[in-house]
Amino acid sequence: MPSYSPPLRDIRFVVHDLLQTERVLAETGAFPGVDRDLIDQVLEEAGKMAAEQIQPQNQASEAEGCRMEKGVVTTPPGIRAAYAAFVAGGWSGLCARPEHGGQGLPQMLAFVLNELTSAASIAASDYFGLFAMVYHMVQRHASPALQAVYSEGLASGRFGGTMCMTEPHCGTDVGLARTRAEPTADGSWRLTGTKIFISAGEHDLTENIVHLVLARAVGDPPGSRGLSLFLTPKILPDGARNGLVAVTLEDKMAYAASATCQMAFDGATAWLIGERGKGLAAMFDMVNAARLMVGSQGMAATEAAYQIAAAYARQRLQGRAPGKPAHPELPADPILCHPDVRRMLLGVRGYIEAARALYLGLGLEVDIAERHPDPARRKAAADWLGFLTSTTKATLADFGVWCTNDCLQVLGGHGYIRANGVEQLLREVRLNPIQEGANGMLALDLIRRQIPRDDGALWRRFLAELETEAAAAPPALADLAAGLAQARARLAQAADWIRERSAADPSEAGAAGTDFQRMFGLTLFAWQWLKMARVAEAGLERGNDDGFLAGKIMTARFFYRRMLPMAEGHWQSLQAGAETMMTPPPDYFWPDA
Amino acid sequence: MPSYSPPLRDIRFVVHDLLQTERVLAETGAFPGVDRDLIDQVLEEAGKMAAEQIQPQNQASEAEGCRMEKGVVTTPPGIRAAYAAFVAGGWSGLCARPEHGGQGLPQMLAFVLNELTSAASIAASDYFGLFAMVYHMVQRHASPALQAVYSEGLASGRFGGTMCMTEPHCGTDVGLARTRAEPTADGSWRLTGTKIFISAGEHDLTENIVHLVLARAVGDPPGSRGLSLFLTPKILPDGARNGLVAVTLEDKMAYAASATCQMAFDGATAWLIGERGKGLAAMFDMVNAARLMVGSQGMAATEAAYQIAAAYARQRLQGRAPGKPAHPELPADPILCHPDVRRMLLGVRGYIEAARALYLGLGLEVDIAERHPDPARRKAAADWLGFLTSTTKATLADFGVWCTNDCLQVLGGHGYIRANGVEQLLREVRLNPIQEGANGMLALDLIRRQIPRDDGALWRRFLAELETEAAAAPPALADLAAGLAQARARLAQAADWIRERSAADPSEAGAAGTDFQRMFGLTLFAWQWLKMARVAEAGLERGNDDGFLAGKIMTARFFYRRMLPMAEGHWQSLQAGAETMMTPPPDYFWPDA
Repeated sequence: MPSYSPPLRDIRFVVHDLLQTERVLAETGAFPGVDRDLIDQVLEEAGKMAAEQIQPQNQASEAEGCRMEKGVVTTPPGIRAAYAAFVAGGWSGLCARPEHGGQGLPQMLAFVLNELTSAASIAASDYFGLFAMVYHMVQRHASPALQAVYSEGLASGRFGGTMCMTEPHCGTDVGLARTRAEPTADGSWRLTGTKIFISAGEHDLTENIVHLVLARAVGDPPGSRGLSLFLTPKILPDGARNGLVAVTLEDKMAYAASATCQMAFDGATAWLIGERGKGLAAMFDMVNAARLMVGSQGMAATEAAYQIAAAYARQRLQGRAPGKPAHPELPADPILCHPDVRRMLLGVRGYIEAARALYLGLGLEVDIAERHPDPARRKAAADWLGFLTSTTKATLADFGVWCTNDCLQVLGGHGYIRANGVEQLLREVRLNPIQEGANGMLALDLIRRQIPRDDGALWRRFLAELETEAAAAPPALADLAAGLAQARARLAQAADWIRERSAADPSEAGAAGTDFQRMFGLTLFAWQWLKMARVAEAGLERGNDDGFLAGKIMTARFFYRRMLPMAEGHWQSLQAGAETMMTPPPDYFWPDA
Repeated sequence: MPSYSPPLRDIRFVVHDLLQTERVLAETGAFPGVDRDLIDQVLEEAGKMAAEQIQPQNQASEAEGCRMEKGVVTTPPGIRAAYAAFVAGGWSGLCARPEHGGQGLPQMLAFVLNELTSAASIAASDYFGLFAMVYHMVQRHASPALQAVYSEGLASGRFGGTMCMTEPHCGTDVGLARTRAEPTADGSWRLTGTKIFISAGEHDLTENIVHLVLARAVGDPPGSRGLSLFLTPKILPDGARNGLVAVTLEDKMAYAASATCQMAFDGATAWLIGERGKGLAAMFDMVNAARLMVGSQGMAATEAAYQIAAAYARQRLQGRAPGKPAHPELPADPILCHPDVRRMLLGVRGYIEAARALYLGLGLEVDIAERHPDPARRKAAADWLGFLTSTTKATLADFGVWCTNDCLQVLGGHGYIRANGVEQLLREVRLNPIQEGANGMLALDLIRRQIPRDDGALWRRFLAELETEAAAAPPALADLAAGLAQARARLAQAADWIRERSAADPSEAGAAGTDFQRMFGLTLFAWQWLKMARVAEAGLERGNDDGFLAGKIMTARFFYRRMLPMAEGHWQSLQAGAETMMTPPPDYFWPDA
């Protein structure tokens, strides 16, 4: 059975050395007592819980899966135990307000917690993350009366929650939603409709489930502007069962322990949260949080896969090192001697560590956006999150699939065997490029909304950040600084190219989307790697490295020299424009026979 | 339930228009009566069988899986029915000799058959393909006495067969094998040892199973040169059960209907086939055939996935075409209107069709290598097969994973649902880059063995073929010809770079391996696309195209402009050399916590 060792040293490097979390949080004044020691203690405890209480059930729960009978969903015993441990440890209320029984800690720590629990068990972490997001949605959008009813239950883990957006005929195009809401005399609403792909739609982990449902109030216009958001509990405040039921449990590629349900609402009692007709905007608070969670699951699962692959590469003896045997006393050398095995493992590290730096950096921006005393700093952080969230999700998700795939390859045929654990992780991460906005759609969001936003102000800020980072590099990292400057220039050139072409042909943005998104993602990682290398280099100059800091610089260089160059392929492909894909007539695409 | 429509028009285009199969086979003089009509009839019948008798069981058999009890394996009923249909149709003896009850048809047709049955059910096709390969191994290497005992059973489908190479401690490095063979007085041998990952190692499809086992005769030297090949039947000629048994059934990522067994040989009676100490060379006849089969499974499964994705893209309404609605009368446009969906589908076609052209071209080379009257032509074909087989396998396998992945993405969340069929295909193709030589090892084979072979003669022949093809392009395809010339030049430059660097550092070949293999694969496809475009262009000039030939040129152009550019990224990455991956010390790779 695979095990998981929390990569706490790498995480601390990002949290303390790279992001200076203690200092940044202190600036907000919102987290008195949250110092380096406390943070380390939380990391330590979270890692212990993830490794010892969440991970051991992961394989068995996947094999067992959820079961459904007459609308009742039974989760695997391992999931129930993991959830109980999570709740007992107080983790469900990590960032919840103290008046709801929460610990009031920064979101950045929830981001770390999410990595650790996701690496231990994506299925379990789905429940954890979702419920926490619903708590925050209630705080942000629900009336004080609703908050009073649901906050404590969500913070304490007694209540679960869901987001109900997708319907059988609409996913990406949520404006087509047909679920309708009818007003009643007492101010509540009655919801009727069908929602699909609802994570944790029904289960046996909590005594109630708080569904956040997008629906169209009767009389409101079609399209996304006619949608409102409703809070719809499974159990009504009077203890009666509400008019909603899980009708099927999806049979999926993975996540069998996560109950993905089709939900039928049949006149279910609901309350409007947020403004009528502005439901989609409100729901996007949750979608954006979920996007970062989904992206980080790719990174976390890859970390789990990396650990299995690296351990295998150390002990598996096969073939000889190039040139001469590394271990002539053994019948063969460990496969770690083979350059191609190292290429795969280094590539995985090149992804995971940059992804973590990016992800935790955004976690800290969440705290600034929510709690900084200066409104300008709050707005700047919120804008920054808006600018980077969709591309961070897409990039972390794509690399998660590719890199977990490489981890499986390191094990050869043994990677294909279920017991060794990597194949489950690969099946799991495959959902990430689809969930919470298919990556192709997020590429359009980047090009059409984020880059032009505020007349390009955020885009210019982003380019300036890269420029600043390249300029800050010490002489020892001059090659990386030059690489970042070049990647930045190419990305800017690509954005200009798309903007100019799009004026004449609206297909150009979509045609360029994925190539541009991948260039952007590689550049994001390059930026993070130069930052990390700069911090590592400064540490090296202070002396006393046991190899850890030198390793950061090795991975940075590997990333720049062996991974970043793929951006050049995307740039060339992008310049082929829309013509190559828009010319074929529809008939071209159907099987001929 | 997904269905499958045999892409016969595309296949006929390759078989007739591109490869001129009728003419080439006629040159061998070995296949009288095999004309275009007969070929078309075989394609038609094979397609019908695949779609109607093999494919419908595919999903259910995967869900059901094989079961094992006390060494007895029960395959799913659907697999048994598919196998019975295959045998009843005479397909098991398609290329077997008439004196064994076979049809004596060219291998090229078996290659087509393999695509069709693999697209319908990889699990079923594994049995079919394996048994046929064992038949040919017996013809090629076994004594006339053994041939007399086993040929008819294998040709008629009454006997199955396996290849037993891998052991628990050795896969790639097969020279470490410990299975030993002891001679007996009657000239037979006794085999003792354990083999793992044995496809069709035990099952209920045939009355006997002919295992081809690599083992070391007592007293022979260690390493691969001490290995011999033994024929070891499950049931001995006298009807007694031989001393071998399946001890476990692997629980894998996919192929649950294909019985992958760990086999224990305990003094099993066996007969040497081929020369003593030359077992690995003999086994490589089968490995090479299996490599082409494995590669083509990636292509075939992707075709099946493509059909599901294209059908979904046509009917799924979501969002609006860029610029203005394509179908204002509908609530949304089919997602085929979105450039990024088209990008994925075109990319899949760019892979499948080039892969098929390459694969069937090699199928025809097999017939030339085996049956051409001119020994020089036979040798040239055999050399060509040796030169291209490992890279063809690796490239078809890698693209199979990436492209099936894109097909899943086209379906969004619905792609993740088992019932829609793509996720099973993705799990299946994931084995291909591992099977029959991990792709990373095949990259080393390409660099260290194939390119230098015969003092570089085959490599020069390959470069000359590309040059000839580029020169043959009509003016309308000048852009593609220039693209091929450029890809060829880059590939040659990369090969030179690796050779020069390797003189100083033996790690360089392995470090460059995957990047070079991918450049080579993209160049192989570019070569096939220019060929196909040239043939299509000639057809267009003759008039009367219903869009089919124009479609070929569109895909060719898409390939050159949007897929081939990734070779540039690999070229840049390759030039980083071994240093980036060989510098990190072993400790670098272990989790830190």
